[in-house]
Amino acid sequence: MSAAYTELCDLLRQIGHLTSVAHLVGWDQETYMPERGSSARSDQQALLAGLIHERRTHPHIGELIAACEADPALKSDPLAAANVREMRRDFDRETKLPKDLVAELAKVGSQAQEAWKKAREKSDFKTFLPWLEKMIALTRRKAECLSKPGAAEPYDALIDLYEPDTTAAQLEAVFTPLRAELSKLIQEVRDSKVKISTKCLQAQIPAPDQHAFGQVVLEAMGFDLKAGRLDTTTHPFCQGIGAGDVRLTTRYRDEKFTDALYGTMHEGGHGIYEQGLPKLDKEGNTSKLFGTPLADSVSLGIHESQSRMWENFVGRSKPFWKWALPKSKKHFGKALAKFDVKELYAATNTTIPTLIRVEADEGTYNLHVMIRFELERALINGTMKVKDIPAEWNRRYSEYLGLEVPDDRRGCLQDVHWSFGLFGYFPTYTLGNLYAAQLWEKINADLPDLAKDIGKGKMHELKAWLNAKIHAHGRRYSASELCQKITGKPLSADPLLRHLRKKAEQVYGI
Amino acid sequence: MSAAYTELCDLLRQIGHLTSVAHLVGWDQETYMPERGSSARSDQQALLAGLIHERRTHPHIGELIAACEADPALKSDPLAAANVREMRRDFDRETKLPKDLVAELAKVGSQAQEAWKKAREKSDFKTFLPWLEKMIALTRRKAECLSKPGAAEPYDALIDLYEPDTTAAQLEAVFTPLRAELSKLIQEVRDSKVKISTKCLQAQIPAPDQHAFGQVVLEAMGFDLKAGRLDTTTHPFCQGIGAGDVRLTTRYRDEKFTDALYGTMHEGGHGIYEQGLPKLDKEGNTSKLFGTPLADSVSLGIHESQSRMWENFVGRSKPFWKWALPKSKKHFGKALAKFDVKELYAATNTTIPTLIRVEADEGTYNLHVMIRFELERALINGTMKVKDIPAEWNRRYSEYLGLEVPDDRRGCLQDVHWSFGLFGYFPTYTLGNLYAAQLWEKINADLPDLAKDIGKGKMHELKAWLNAKIHAHGRRYSASELCQKITGKPLSADPLLRHLRKKAEQVYGI
Repeated sequence: MSAAYTELCDLLRQIGHLTSVAHLVGWDQETYMPERGSSARSDQQALLAGLIHERRTHPHIGELIAACEADPALKSDPLAAANVREMRRDFDRETKLPKDLVAELAKVGSQAQEAWKKAREKSDFKTFLPWLEKMIALTRRKAECLSKPGAAEPYDALIDLYEPDTTAAQLEAVFTPLRAELSKLIQEVRDSKVKISTKCLQAQIPAPDQHAFGQVVLEAMGFDLKAGRLDTTTHPFCQGIGAGDVRLTTRYRDEKFTDALYGTMHEGGHGIYEQGLPKLDKEGNTSKLFGTPLADSVSLGIHESQSRMWENFVGRSKPFWKWALPKSKKHFGKALAKFDVKELYAATNTTIPTLIRVEADEGTYNLHVMIRFELERALINGTMKVKDIPAEWNRRYSEYLGLEVPDDRRGCLQDVHWSFGLFGYFPTYTLGNLYAAQLWEKINADLPDLAKDIGKGKMHELKAWLNAKIHAHGRRYSASELCQKITGKPLSADPLLRHLRKKAEQVYGI
Repeated sequence: MSAAYTELCDLLRQIGHLTSVAHLVGWDQETYMPERGSSARSDQQALLAGLIHERRTHPHIGELIAACEADPALKSDPLAAANVREMRRDFDRETKLPKDLVAELAKVGSQAQEAWKKAREKSDFKTFLPWLEKMIALTRRKAECLSKPGAAEPYDALIDLYEPDTTAAQLEAVFTPLRAELSKLIQEVRDSKVKISTKCLQAQIPAPDQHAFGQVVLEAMGFDLKAGRLDTTTHPFCQGIGAGDVRLTTRYRDEKFTDALYGTMHEGGHGIYEQGLPKLDKEGNTSKLFGTPLADSVSLGIHESQSRMWENFVGRSKPFWKWALPKSKKHFGKALAKFDVKELYAATNTTIPTLIRVEADEGTYNLHVMIRFELERALINGTMKVKDIPAEWNRRYSEYLGLEVPDDRRGCLQDVHWSFGLFGYFPTYTLGNLYAAQLWEKINADLPDLAKDIGKGKMHELKAWLNAKIHAHGRRYSASELCQKITGKPLSADPLLRHLRKKAEQVYGI
């Protein structure tokens, strides 16, 4: 291997360790930090972010990448070539944004987030409007800086941050049939006479028992609890801290135990991806690739496909409950004794349009995402005015979900994302569902006994499949390349629609 | 204030934040880190240690200190002058050690610690001997580099690391009468006919109940649980993470609940000191002094005086049990119902010579320390051979404590300190007891109702006294200056001896 490539990997590994430290500092802030530590914590995080940015954008990194790109020997090594290609992507992205724009986005974003909190509380979009206008103006400047030559629309540059090499037009091509079919499906469910009892979800189960069972499920999934842990936070998340260390969190309510259970499985899916990336060598030490793109995840869409697969395709399946219901007895006692697998399967697979995205079911969730995608695309491309958001939002909720939005708190003010400039992110949630469904069909073709195995709590072959086909590659392939390579087809809405329709048929008899 | 001084404080504050991060990373390793994260964690810690060392020893820091020292205006500001004096001390110390020596100490120390573990297991001093010889040779080189001109003996340079401006001769002057009187006191107790029942300490109390009560005690002491927390580790410790964030740990056994209780009070004492240092400003943000000596603790001896005071002078007092015994009912139920204050006071104040330092009682503990002080002083000064340690160790345990050492595991191999080069550290444990006793007499003169108040669980005046007299000053005064300033006298063995004799009289009727 060339000296430049080796040095580059060494430098990125060091930056990776520094990033691990920043991740730990962030994890601690959400889990165990005492409240009076918060002011100093901001100082610590700003310091680390500065150090990391300085190192990632150091001209010497640029020189080394250029030296690798000019090295013909490197081109014949497809792994190293892919690694350098992605290093170039990261370096260009990090160096393209002017410092003052980054600082202003951070500053205004923090103020706008505060304004959003207050506006949401009072359901008062007008007080948030000037802040959102500022954030959108700044984000448009950001998109301009990041835009690739010949890009079809400014919004593409933002999608590219989270879903590299994917464009709004490509998303639209998959989302449009999905939206149409989903709306139809919802109408069919609405028309069905079947009423699902969700009484089993109201079983009172103390948080420590839910926590213990959550760990049993994680273990069955193949999440390595010696290389990770599960804690409690207000908002569940998964944070890869570093090589051999992945932290998951969930939250417990005494009732509706499935909230925490599916939260845990969801984050566990992210965690299994993080653990599957080649960050450790065979001796359990930091690998040579740690910190480089080959030990990093492909995209948010692919990451989300892993969490959604475990949560929805495994966790909300009949075979899962066949295993989990008797298994849960040890921890839940008699709380679920009077319910059977069929009842739990039905109760965890209802299709009921709701106003709030984070409370939505597996199917309708995608309509929430599509509304945000359509609006933010128009906002960033300048084809819609910020002040028109409430009307456009409400019109779509009526059209796609059949719901009247009673106020902005339960409408366009419900999500924090836009307030601090997170545009281009929402579509990855539905991309996750789409990729999960398409992969799931291929997995079941490759592993014909999978359903039976899940019914016995045997999920290691599924995990091994994901490890080998997806996780081990890091960022060697883009999301769409990976999809084509594994499933033999480009991404399509059909597998997800088949999956959702089949469930609706089983649950609602449509 | 001069521009150089302001810049210096700014730079040290940044280094302070980086140090906070390193502390958090270390705390996490002992509390929540999953085991497979340990290899990468070493990499992270090495990286942070390197960054911190690089910044602390940067020539620009030296230039700024020199500029401050040359500034006549600064001399007229006693606070700034003291701050610069201590910055100079730190800078010189950090720049005096050659890099290769630091690296070798770390490397050999890590190997020697492994050798010590194995040797202790097999009680085999011989296999540890060559490693200890290497460590002592390296430590003598270190002492040579750090030695001040005209120092009386090499060992002084090592004491100075933990107890600045204190010499072995000064320690000897206080330790010698303490040793003689303590040995006498132990003999008197041994001759007394009184037998103390420690049955109350065998009450079975589940760890979560002990944890809950430990927090009640911490709160009564004035430890701010919104600016700190209590967790569980194998070895209890206190770690100041940063401004507004101090982490304590303890460990629980189902029996002998006082182990955890006094561990918590001990670490709580350290924690109250850390919280009392001026690291936060009035608005709760990082103070201008954070990271500079004026927001740092005086010495290990003074730090230990705080922990020992809360543990031994408060926690093992009759008034404390008068409050704590009824207070504990809520958490301990009937576990202590059949015992009274007198029994708990006696059981927590026995004087029984033991072989193991960490299991020793308040009085005999100091004899363990003195044996180590005498031996390490001779080893570093070259007046004793390493191979003679076991014989010298055992002779002293017989002479001072009246105990025959059956094997090296329970003798000279019991402590980890020397294996990784921690020489000059042991004396600070007894210094802590001495300072605590001398301060305690003054506190009781200043606060005549203190015993009565403690009996009611009112300890805030004690905490406020410590805050004002000790904590608020940071490193403005040295330990001996502080002692003289507060108590009007230099450090003496008499207050501690009075305190221990009084307890022995009450408990054993001697």
